[in-house]
Amino acid sequence: MEPYELDATQAAQLIAARQLSCEELARSTLAHVARREPQVKAWAHIDPAQVVRNARELDTGQGGSALHGSTWGVKDVIDTRDMPTSQNSAIYLGHRPSKDAACVAVARHSGALILGKTETAEFAAGGRLPATRNPHNVLHTPGASSSGSAAAVGSCMAQLALATQTGGSLIRPAAYNGICGFKPTHGLVSTEGAKMFAPTLDTIGWYARSVADLSLAARVFGLAADAPRRPDGVRGLRVGLCRGPNRAHIEPDGESALLTAARRLADAGAIVEELDLPEPFERMTEAHRTIMRGEGRATFLCEYLAHRPQLHRSFIDLAENADGIGHGDLLRALDHAAACRVAFDALFGPRLHLLLTPPAPGEAPLASESEGSMIFNAMWTALHVPCISIPAGTGRRGLPLGVQLVAPRGRDSELLGMAQACAEVFGD
Amino acid sequence: MEPYELDATQAAQLIAARQLSCEELARSTLAHVARREPQVKAWAHIDPAQVVRNARELDTGQGGSALHGSTWGVKDVIDTRDMPTSQNSAIYLGHRPSKDAACVAVARHSGALILGKTETAEFAAGGRLPATRNPHNVLHTPGASSSGSAAAVGSCMAQLALATQTGGSLIRPAAYNGICGFKPTHGLVSTEGAKMFAPTLDTIGWYARSVADLSLAARVFGLAADAPRRPDGVRGLRVGLCRGPNRAHIEPDGESALLTAARRLADAGAIVEELDLPEPFERMTEAHRTIMRGEGRATFLCEYLAHRPQLHRSFIDLAENADGIGHGDLLRALDHAAACRVAFDALFGPRLHLLLTPPAPGEAPLASESEGSMIFNAMWTALHVPCISIPAGTGRRGLPLGVQLVAPRGRDSELLGMAQACAEVFGD
Repeated sequence: MEPYELDATQAAQLIAARQLSCEELARSTLAHVARREPQVKAWAHIDPAQVVRNARELDTGQGGSALHGSTWGVKDVIDTRDMPTSQNSAIYLGHRPSKDAACVAVARHSGALILGKTETAEFAAGGRLPATRNPHNVLHTPGASSSGSAAAVGSCMAQLALATQTGGSLIRPAAYNGICGFKPTHGLVSTEGAKMFAPTLDTIGWYARSVADLSLAARVFGLAADAPRRPDGVRGLRVGLCRGPNRAHIEPDGESALLTAARRLADAGAIVEELDLPEPFERMTEAHRTIMRGEGRATFLCEYLAHRPQLHRSFIDLAENADGIGHGDLLRALDHAAACRVAFDALFGPRLHLLLTPPAPGEAPLASESEGSMIFNAMWTALHVPCISIPAGTGRRGLPLGVQLVAPRGRDSELLGMAQACAEVFGD
Repeated sequence: MEPYELDATQAAQLIAARQLSCEELARSTLAHVARREPQVKAWAHIDPAQVVRNARELDTGQGGSALHGSTWGVKDVIDTRDMPTSQNSAIYLGHRPSKDAACVAVARHSGALILGKTETAEFAAGGRLPATRNPHNVLHTPGASSSGSAAAVGSCMAQLALATQTGGSLIRPAAYNGICGFKPTHGLVSTEGAKMFAPTLDTIGWYARSVADLSLAARVFGLAADAPRRPDGVRGLRVGLCRGPNRAHIEPDGESALLTAARRLADAGAIVEELDLPEPFERMTEAHRTIMRGEGRATFLCEYLAHRPQLHRSFIDLAENADGIGHGDLLRALDHAAACRVAFDALFGPRLHLLLTPPAPGEAPLASESEGSMIFNAMWTALHVPCISIPAGTGRRGLPLGVQLVAPRGRDSELLGMAQACAEVFGD
């Protein structure tokens, strides 16, 4: 096994035992990037010489952190002090931020080796699409705006990658690229230094090749301080099988992955029951859209006024409020989402521990047709709940499928623990 | 009258008529700064040569905007591309951001002449206090973290100034400095590029010497598109005189200002009635504190990890969660605030148009004793409602007093219109 194939948890053990240096891991990864990047196109910026220099510094510096030397991609809407942050926008092409975004600073302080910036949709919102292709089949989309981060991890060009979700940009690409993705509870990871789109929705999260690596990163962000490991695996776990208000959009492959996961959980001793959400949740997809576009109006005013000719039409529409979303519409949507958050959390307790739900309709569509739909993500984003996507087999076209696990707000640590147990069952 | 004494509305008319140049206004203002700054200490950074250069550019450039040539201070937690943004923190001393914060870019695009950066509490939060003194009596505090912006406007060193409010940092200093302050509905002005403290509370607003100037700026931020002028002044306006849950903290001077304002409104034909808020609002001050400190924990993690020795003890306490605020506590406070927002807006309609309430307990305390209390601001911040402070006479020590006007969320434009009518009545 080459070093680049190790996940961060495995590599950390070897690095701590001085059986692997950060530089060796970096060089192995860079050699793999040189092979894979021409097809996958995950990177907006990567400077191998800089990576090796930083890896050497990590080797001479103090270790101790469990992330020491781990290799990271950073979505190119997140500021980095030593690399450009272009946001896939003509306005900010080659822009050099003066400091790291908060999440980058936290990762770096914990020993992360930032390899480079990963491709994104323009401002992580729309407009210009990323150049990235799905590493499992380059004719297919890697997903939405976090494509570069997901494809980098999915093709073993990075162990971890920072990403963002405002609609479905984090969880859907995780499923499409056959990796693990974690969207924490909204507000628990600072978004400072990441491009804003709709602050009520914008959430920083990360990708990894294992749930253990998701937890490793969660710990440095203060989200898995106690990361409880379930002694009995999934035995006794009460799982709600929840297709949600948009169930009609589940494709046969997605349905099959969901049912297989449910069956494996039940076989391993979990109590799986179908769960329907009450009526107010039917309106959450629309509320999400109103919040996203209503808040986007204020967010893109600056670029609209100062750089209009370099802005994709979709942002001009946002700033000009082409949808005609009034302040009252936005406030009603915000209030509806707030009320549903309380109602959602109240579903949980001794009789329900987590939801099992689709992360996407099915396999990744052809890149020529679509980048996929956020329909199985929008509601959870607006509910602020922690979500994890984990791999769950492949579909008819041989592309990865995933399932999504959802817990109530603030239960990030417990969700990571339950996801670890579930992943062990699915991995059979 | 010297040009620096004009408000932005007056100056704009002269500039548009070519009876005043931006450079003349800038030079007059700079001469006044040279006289007043040694006592007031409002500026963290001001470079007169740069100001004159930028004013000349405005004179040669296209006019047309109503803010063209207006003079602005920018609170030093808000990024500026051509001036340092030190945040009154040893960590960021002399830091040069690579781009303007969104609100600065919007103001600049609208012709604002940024004079310099104004003094702030460390990270607009606490820790190191600003050096600023109250321009009406330098032995007294100018207020909280937006002190520099408020004192700059209050001493005629700027016509307008950008500020922020997370607790009471915008409205209270407006009252203490005898000026107008506007905190818009949360979320309607992008906070991108301003230091985050508690994103659910952080709000960008501005100071001016007249309500007309507040509206002028509101228009460029898309908040006063229709800025309705009340044809009958305050006649028929239904005003709730609301001392709020912390009424016991109102000082005699503050009470007197409130009653005088209420009497003048009634004399001019407004219908003023006492209004008590129901029980849930009694818990809003505590909910605000829980949100501020709970969210601050994530926000300052980055500085805590990477720059701990340069951080004031109060931020270490925040990041280490010295208060022991759990995720559950934070979520309960967020949900309580969300529910109160709905209940608050529902109070308004044909029988209630706005609230009249104190912006601070009374006159500015001695700087040696206190920077004042946010007790009459915290609830409104967490309710996300638009607030305006306008001058309302002086107290026993000859220091300015103010009153605060509050409207439901999203009614910023109407509030500005009502505040204009109220200010005309108070100004008698």
